[in-house]
Amino acid sequence: MNNSRDDNTALLLIDVQQGLADPSLGERNNPDAEANMARLLAAWRQRRQPVIHIRHCSVEPDSTLRPELPGNAFKDEVKPLPQEKTFSKTVNSAFIGTGLERYLRDSGISALVIVGLTTDHCVSASTRMASDLGFEVNLVADATAAFERHGYDGEHYSGETIHRINLASLNGEFCRVCNTAELLDGSA
Amino acid sequence: MNNSRDDNTALLLIDVQQGLADPSLGERNNPDAEANMARLLAAWRQRRQPVIHIRHCSVEPDSTLRPELPGNAFKDEVKPLPQEKTFSKTVNSAFIGTGLERYLRDSGISALVIVGLTTDHCVSASTRMASDLGFEVNLVADATAAFERHGYDGEHYSGETIHRINLASLNGEFCRVCNTAELLDGSA
Repeated sequence: MNNSRDDNTALLLIDVQQGLADPSLGERNNPDAEANMARLLAAWRQRRQPVIHIRHCSVEPDSTLRPELPGNAFKDEVKPLPQEKTFSKTVNSAFIGTGLERYLRDSGISALVIVGLTTDHCVSASTRMASDLGFEVNLVADATAAFERHGYDGEHYSGETIHRINLASLNGEFCRVCNTAELLDGSA
Repeated sequence: MNNSRDDNTALLLIDVQQGLADPSLGERNNPDAEANMARLLAAWRQRRQPVIHIRHCSVEPDSTLRPELPGNAFKDEVKPLPQEKTFSKTVNSAFIGTGLERYLRDSGISALVIVGLTTDHCVSASTRMASDLGFEVNLVADATAAFERHGYDGEHYSGETIHRINLASLNGEFCRVCNTAELLDGSA
């Protein structure tokens, strides 16, 4: 199945915001993620396919993504154009408390290419709901990234480990995991 | 915070069905999961706290959980009593295509203790949505379990690895990960 050339496949960019570069978040994998997002964004714009930006507007007291903070701004690599659709959310899933599902259905969009931050939190939550709501999802491994975490058991897991295993749990059940090059050359 | 003794904390059992014992699913971690679910279920019944069972009724052609197959039945350890609420679903999240959210709100239930199968698929998807919808969640590590998986990169991950890292991604963001003993002795 190749839906990357389909006019009705939207590129969904999740939480690509400056506050997620804060050093307090710890070690992150895949420093090339933003460059790959930018390559996909340029391709979607060139093909005039739909682009949707999701902005996290945190209500947590100590979040770098609170709406009044500079960290709420989109990263330079993926700044929305005025005509591109943007939804703001306060929780992890891009589908909760937003008009995203309604917008996709009204626009005849049945397939999504998902990129953004972070793999295991907002990207995973949004991918799972997209799939459960009936949308077809390609999730781009090299255009997403995760931070290191400590488990409930105190064990430490690197960003790369968190990223890979969360993708393994999503792949085949909620989405097809692919990479940027496959989407750009049409083989995905 | 201790909500395990709260009358309005429901025990939510996800997909504890016979078809998930099928050998085709591969190696699973935590063989004690069902015994721990049964201990929690007995405690909830004794305390007369709400119990909710989720049954997966798959629409996938080769699933062991299709409604007409014996695998759709609940495992003996957690069979619902007639007065206990049961919701059927066809996707991963217990909140999609069911009346669960409406039922919880109408019943004044604001907190959930989640157990069941599998950690990284239906348990994670349901925990994420519960949290994003505003419910407080305790997720019971030793009353959930995961199967081995192969990553998109072909790498093999054991059920225990999948389980632990998925819990690490959920803990603190979508839920508090705890264990059965903490809930039974009231320390959770």
